[in-house]
Amino acid sequence: MQSKEKIAIIGGGLSGSLLAICLAKRGFKVQLFERRGDIRKGQAEAGRSINLALSTRGIEALKKVDLAEKVLSDAIPMNGRMMHSVKGELTYQAYGKSGQFINSVSRSGLNIKLLELADEFENVELFFNHRCIDIDLNINTATLETKDGQKINIAADIIFGSDGAFSAVRSEMQKTNRFNYSQVYENYGYKELEIPPGPNGSFLIDKNALHIWPRGEFMMIALPNPNGSFTCTLFLAYEGKHSFENLKTKVDVTAFFETHFPDAMALMPGYLEDFFNNPTGNLVTIRSNPWVYNNFALIGDAAHAIIPFYGQGMNCSFEDVSEIDEIIETYYPDWNKIFTKYQEARIVNANAIADLACKNFVEMRDLVGKSSFIHFKKIEQELTEKYPNIYKSQYSLVSFSTAPYSEALAQGFKNEALIGYITEHKLEDKLDDPTVMMPLFRDFLGYDAE
Amino acid sequence: MQSKEKIAIIGGGLSGSLLAICLAKRGFKVQLFERRGDIRKGQAEAGRSINLALSTRGIEALKKVDLAEKVLSDAIPMNGRMMHSVKGELTYQAYGKSGQFINSVSRSGLNIKLLELADEFENVELFFNHRCIDIDLNINTATLETKDGQKINIAADIIFGSDGAFSAVRSEMQKTNRFNYSQVYENYGYKELEIPPGPNGSFLIDKNALHIWPRGEFMMIALPNPNGSFTCTLFLAYEGKHSFENLKTKVDVTAFFETHFPDAMALMPGYLEDFFNNPTGNLVTIRSNPWVYNNFALIGDAAHAIIPFYGQGMNCSFEDVSEIDEIIETYYPDWNKIFTKYQEARIVNANAIADLACKNFVEMRDLVGKSSFIHFKKIEQELTEKYPNIYKSQYSLVSFSTAPYSEALAQGFKNEALIGYITEHKLEDKLDDPTVMMPLFRDFLGYDAE
Repeated sequence: MQSKEKIAIIGGGLSGSLLAICLAKRGFKVQLFERRGDIRKGQAEAGRSINLALSTRGIEALKKVDLAEKVLSDAIPMNGRMMHSVKGELTYQAYGKSGQFINSVSRSGLNIKLLELADEFENVELFFNHRCIDIDLNINTATLETKDGQKINIAADIIFGSDGAFSAVRSEMQKTNRFNYSQVYENYGYKELEIPPGPNGSFLIDKNALHIWPRGEFMMIALPNPNGSFTCTLFLAYEGKHSFENLKTKVDVTAFFETHFPDAMALMPGYLEDFFNNPTGNLVTIRSNPWVYNNFALIGDAAHAIIPFYGQGMNCSFEDVSEIDEIIETYYPDWNKIFTKYQEARIVNANAIADLACKNFVEMRDLVGKSSFIHFKKIEQELTEKYPNIYKSQYSLVSFSTAPYSEALAQGFKNEALIGYITEHKLEDKLDDPTVMMPLFRDFLGYDAE
Repeated sequence: MQSKEKIAIIGGGLSGSLLAICLAKRGFKVQLFERRGDIRKGQAEAGRSINLALSTRGIEALKKVDLAEKVLSDAIPMNGRMMHSVKGELTYQAYGKSGQFINSVSRSGLNIKLLELADEFENVELFFNHRCIDIDLNINTATLETKDGQKINIAADIIFGSDGAFSAVRSEMQKTNRFNYSQVYENYGYKELEIPPGPNGSFLIDKNALHIWPRGEFMMIALPNPNGSFTCTLFLAYEGKHSFENLKTKVDVTAFFETHFPDAMALMPGYLEDFFNNPTGNLVTIRSNPWVYNNFALIGDAAHAIIPFYGQGMNCSFEDVSEIDEIIETYYPDWNKIFTKYQEARIVNANAIADLACKNFVEMRDLVGKSSFIHFKKIEQELTEKYPNIYKSQYSLVSFSTAPYSEALAQGFKNEALIGYITEHKLEDKLDDPTVMMPLFRDFLGYDAE
């Protein structure tokens, strides 16, 4: 073990701490530097989403470090979307086949579990309140500033930047020759609100669903927490008719909720306080290429921040960690090859899930409430149940498989063409007739029965 | 005049110096700060393209400051593209109708003329060797560093950043909330080479054409200079079969030119020296949004760097200047409105020409040599001649009009659909039959004869 490389990880959030565990298991000497205080001591940062949807990719990554069971035991399964109309009518769409679900988990709870596990390794050192203020890409060093203003220089053989969407490591890489980079903001912000628990920690709306209040140009969603509460997130444009700009006073906000979210409002006694006290979050998509330079590599949001509408930010970042771990397994000790393979494997898929997340924003806030979309989902659900080995919905490929995101993106277009044909030719009552369907599967999905 | 605002311009290249003149004519007190030395004293920077294609948008902008005639008197008209096959066969495509041409001009010559004119205004001060190292967006100041390391703080009511693709002004704006930004590099670089003048300053290839050696994955182009020489630019991938990576030695380069550019090679005695001495340039597309913040505005490449394949970089930047000048005419002294209108008018069009330039790279290096493309251009040329008021080619809208680039982009798709239909239905011999063509113009181009 002594001969193995010393690895520094800048950023101890979800992906950084999982990476630390994976590398520690492989016997590397790992130092992890986190800008914030130790979340295990209750020093969580405000203004970040409280719960997240953990699905197959994330679970598979947690299995590698034997944490999946422990994390899932504290999670709440969400089997589908529950749409709330303005009148309070409910419509339900299952996410997949019976028994398939995504999991509402606490971000801080998960981060704590990861740090606790990392801390159990003798070859891991954790440093909190260490903010990266500079790196030198050519001599494998980083400068960190502690809370009391002290500056520390560290060196390592390999340095990972898992320091989030506004990564200090990436900002140095951005200065290198021919670095491709984009940051694109939605014209929308978000605000977190709360539906508190009912009596005795009961859930005031369906516990096992992701709730959506689709309103066309804007929407609210809610995910359950173990204590019976729901964390609601209002996604709203910054400017325009329905916008943060037009919600300046308590009267504005009250009227807005009365008009658009009367059923939710009745369950959110603190919504006005939350609205005015909580920060308004931005929604940004960040893409970069390359992700590696000399002995540095970006991972997680530092490489690819995506908007949250497919519930894949954490899952994608965890999959980065899984994949590089497997690549290390295969190519160690050739770090040059490891880094090359890593970015070859991941950049195309990070771009695909970024696209999918943008597409899903429109779907969630607008389409889910429309009859044509509901009809599409009904056909999709039937195909999924009747032909489980042939028809794979995009959602299930993203959330319930580890197929590359780029394949899920491509499959979605094929599925849309197939269901478009079925609708156009009014074949809805032929879905269980294989003599009709098999040729369509062949033509639209490229399915070969042989 | 005393009450008018003091305006600072960071960057004295083409757009900065034209802007200085326009603002001076309106009576503003203008200070222009240029990082490099005074190009009028021969202190031009190496490694920038030597000649540029000036077309209608640029000419219209120069007319506003009465410079068009003077600039065009030193320019060389290019009436079309001359394609050189590997065997040295020539094919010619006119750029537009008879009498329409673009103009090869010297970048430094044009910049000198603009600076000379700017310098004639009493209310313009020029500062060279002043590099912007910081700006404060909130208090309208900039810090400039002189050649001897002295730091100077300046303040102005309005500050323009015309400091090019790697703008210091923009890099501060990038740090503001919700700034959208992207930099995307082509996997291609470029190298400038030279065809020297023939005897007595004669031109060794057709003087009045833009020459192209299209080779599919790579290409070379040449633009004429007044002294009889041509500046050639080789565009080549960094990596892959045909790439800079594979041209390491004189033997490699000689074999490459012998195989792909034998006719040009015979006219370039110094190509080997040029190849190894000249820097390899990058090709980057930069997009940003917003372009304005408080009293700062970006203009030219600082706001929107594009790749050179439509010959519109300078023309687009000059059009930025024209448009803001007209907006000032209308809305002065409401700078808030001026800035808002300016970016509303320009961002969409800068994005459109960026897209067009990327599209044209494929066209120039690959399609121009293909029979299907030549057939397309032949039909287009006939339609342009026969129906000058109905059929507008994309190229002519971009190069010979001031129609918004976004309209040219949209028109191109319509034209492709029309000519696709003509080809598919073999209507090539019906082009002068209005009873056939007018319904097509109506259906594909939305042309209404009423």
